Amino acid sequence: MKGIRRLAQHLDISIGTVSRALNGKPDVNDETRKRVLEAAAELGYVPNQSGRSLRQGTTNIIGFMMQTGTEITGQGDTFFMSVFDGVQAVFARHKLDLVALLCSSEEDPSDYLRRVVARGFADGLILSSTQRRDPRIEFLAERNIPFVTLGRSLTDAGQPWIDLDFEGMAQAAIDRLVARGHRRIAVTRPHDDVNLGYIFVDRCRDALAAHGLPLEENLIFRSTPNEAGGYQIARDLLALDKPPTAIVLINETIAIGFYQALSEAGVKPGRDIAVIGRYSPHAHFLSPPLTCFRLSLRDLGIALAETLLSAMPAFKGHYPDAPANKVWPLELVEGESDTFRVPLR
Amino acid sequence: MKGIRRLAQHLDISIGTVSRALNGKPDVNDETRKRVLEAAAELGYVPNQSGRSLRQGTTNIIGFMMQTGTEITGQGDTFFMSVFDGVQAVFARHKLDLVALLCSSEEDPSDYLRRVVARGFADGLILSSTQRRDPRIEFLAERNIPFVTLGRSLTDAGQPWIDLDFEGMAQAAIDRLVARGHRRIAVTRPHDDVNLGYIFVDRCRDALAAHGLPLEENLIFRSTPNEAGGYQIARDLLALDKPPTAIVLINETIAIGFYQALSEAGVKPGRDIAVIGRYSPHAHFLSPPLTCFRLSLRDLGIALAETLLSAMPAFKGHYPDAPANKVWPLELVEGESDTFRVPLR
Repeated sequence: MKGIRRLAQHLDISIGTVSRALNGKPDVNDETRKRVLEAAAELGYVPNQSGRSLRQGTTNIIGFMMQTGTEITGQGDTFFMSVFDGVQAVFARHKLDLVALLCSSEEDPSDYLRRVVARGFADGLILSSTQRRDPRIEFLAERNIPFVTLGRSLTDAGQPWIDLDFEGMAQAAIDRLVARGHRRIAVTRPHDDVNLGYIFVDRCRDALAAHGLPLEENLIFRSTPNEAGGYQIARDLLALDKPPTAIVLINETIAIGFYQALSEAGVKPGRDIAVIGRYSPHAHFLSPPLTCFRLSLRDLGIALAETLLSAMPAFKGHYPDAPANKVWPLELVEGESDTFRVPLR
Repeated sequence: MKGIRRLAQHLDISIGTVSRALNGKPDVNDETRKRVLEAAAELGYVPNQSGRSLRQGTTNIIGFMMQTGTEITGQGDTFFMSVFDGVQAVFARHKLDLVALLCSSEEDPSDYLRRVVARGFADGLILSSTQRRDPRIEFLAERNIPFVTLGRSLTDAGQPWIDLDFEGMAQAAIDRLVARGHRRIAVTRPHDDVNLGYIFVDRCRDALAAHGLPLEENLIFRSTPNEAGGYQIARDLLALDKPPTAIVLINETIAIGFYQALSEAGVKPGRDIAVIGRYSPHAHFLSPPLTCFRLSLRDLGIALAETLLSAMPAFKGHYPDAPANKVWPLELVEGESDTFRVPLR
C-alpha cells in the first residue's frame, strides 16, 4: 500500500513532487505532471487513504460494533445482516462504507471500543447491545465522536438512539394471554446485562400487575440468545412442579430450540401451552407457526443510518427530519402457537 | 478524532511541538513535554491512528470481506459468525482486530474491494464467496497485499486458500444414496457464480457416472442460500412428473425451508424421500434430524487466520507450518433424513 513511494521510485523523482502532481498543485510543471499521471495509471497506483484521512479528517467509513462469541453465534446472524442492508442503502448515497466491528465476547466492550477509536479509521459509529449502564456511551460523547446506539441505556449523554418497542411487545403479549385465561405466564430474558432485558421484564411485571397477577420469579427464564438457550428453557420449564400455561420469548432464535424440547416431551405449542415470540426467517417454518412480533429490520437500518448522519456535520443537512431518538414499533403476526386457552374454573 | 489539534489548541502551542513531545523527540524541553503529557492524560487524548499507520505501514486491522443482501441474509449468519470466533482467537495473540467488510450484493465485489484497498486501513484481507473467476485475486496479488481466500477459484495467482471439501461431500453423499438403492438423485447449487457450486455439481456428476448413473439436468436445483430458496426447491421438486427419490443440499440454511414445503405436502424426509444436507445449529432441531456434513467453523477460522499471518512478513515467523492451501474435511453426522431406501425391482 506504499503506492506513492513506489511511483516515485519508478519515476526517479521525489515523493513530494509526485504528491503535488497527483493532487493538482500548481508548482509542478506540465510535463512532470503528465509523466506522473501516466505512470500512476500504468502501475495501478492506489492512493494511501491513511494519509488522505489525516489531512481531510474523514475516512468515509462507519463502524457498526457488534459482539461475537460462541454463545451468541445463533443470534448475531439474520438480525444484524438485515439491519446492515438498510444501513448500507443509506450510506451508498454518500459513498460511505460500512464495516462491522467485531468485539469478541471474551473482551470488555469498552476496552475494545477504546482501541478501535484509537485506530482512528471510522468517521462515526453505531453501537449495538447497549448494556444497562454502558461506559461506551460516555467515552464517545466525551470525545465528540458521532454515534448512534441501537438500544437504550441508563447511561445518558444525550446520545441519539433507536430501540425496539419492548414495552409495547410486553404489554400486548401479556394482555393477549391474560384475555385467553392465562394466569401463570413465563417470560424470558437474555443471560447478560443487556438493557432490553430490564425493559421487557419490568413491563411484563407491570402489565401482569394491572390484571392483578404476579410475575413469579421462577417463571423468569434467563438464557443465551440461541437455539441451545431456548432448548434449555423448555427443559427447565417442563421440569417445574407446576409449569406455566404460557410463555413470552424475548429473543428470535430461541423459539427453535424451545419448540424442539417441547416436541421431545410430547408438548405442542398452541395445544398444550401458549407461546408468543419474535419473528425470524426461521419462525415462518416452525410448526405450528409462531405467533410473533415483527419489524422491518431493513427499515430499522435505514433509520439508524439517517439518525447517525443527522449527527454528523458533513451530512446533517441531508437529514433535517431524522429523529434523534425513536422507539421502533413491533407488529404482531398471528400464528397458531398461542391458541391454547385456559378453561375458566 | 482530531485529538492532537484539540490538545495543541488547549495548550496554545503548535501541533508540531505537541507531536514531538508525544513521540518522545529530543528537541522538546522537559517542561513543555510534561505539560503536553499531563494535558493529554487529562483531556483523554486519543492518537490518530491514520497518521501512525502512514508512518509505520501497519494498522493492525484485518478485513474479512463478505457479501450482504436480502437474498443472503439467511446465510451470512451463523456460518461467518462462528468462523469469526476462530479468526479472532488467533488475532488476539497479536493484538490484531478483525473487521467485517460488508459488500452489498448490489455492488460489484471487485469495485468494492478497490475502494476498500484505497482506503488503506487494513494490513491484510480474508476474501469469502470466491467466484468461478475472481478478479479480486489478481487485484490483490498485483499489489502485494497479504490475503487468503475462503474458497478456491479458477483465477490462480498462487494465493493462499482454504476451502471446504465439497468433492468429498459429493462423493460420500452420492455413494451413500446409491448404496441405498437411489437411482434418481437431485442436487442443489447456489444461484450465483460462486466456485463451490461448480466443484460440487461436477463431483456429483462424476460420482454418479462411476455408478453408471446420469445426473439429470432437471434434477439440478439452483437457489438462493436461504430458507426461501429451500422452500422453492421442494415445491419445484414435488411438481415434477417423476420426482427424485433423494436429494443432496449444498447449503446449510435451505434445509429449513425444504423441510417445511415437504411437510405442507405431507412428504416426510427419511420416510418418503432421502435428504442429505449441511450441518447448521438449526439442523439439530429439525424433525427428523438431518443427516448432514459438519465441520468445526471455529477451527476453520483459526486455520484461515494462521494461513493469512504466515503470508505477512511481520507474523510469518510465528506460523512456519501453516499450510498455504488446504481442503478442509467435512464429517458425516448420521441423522434420520436419509433412511428411506428404494426397494429393489
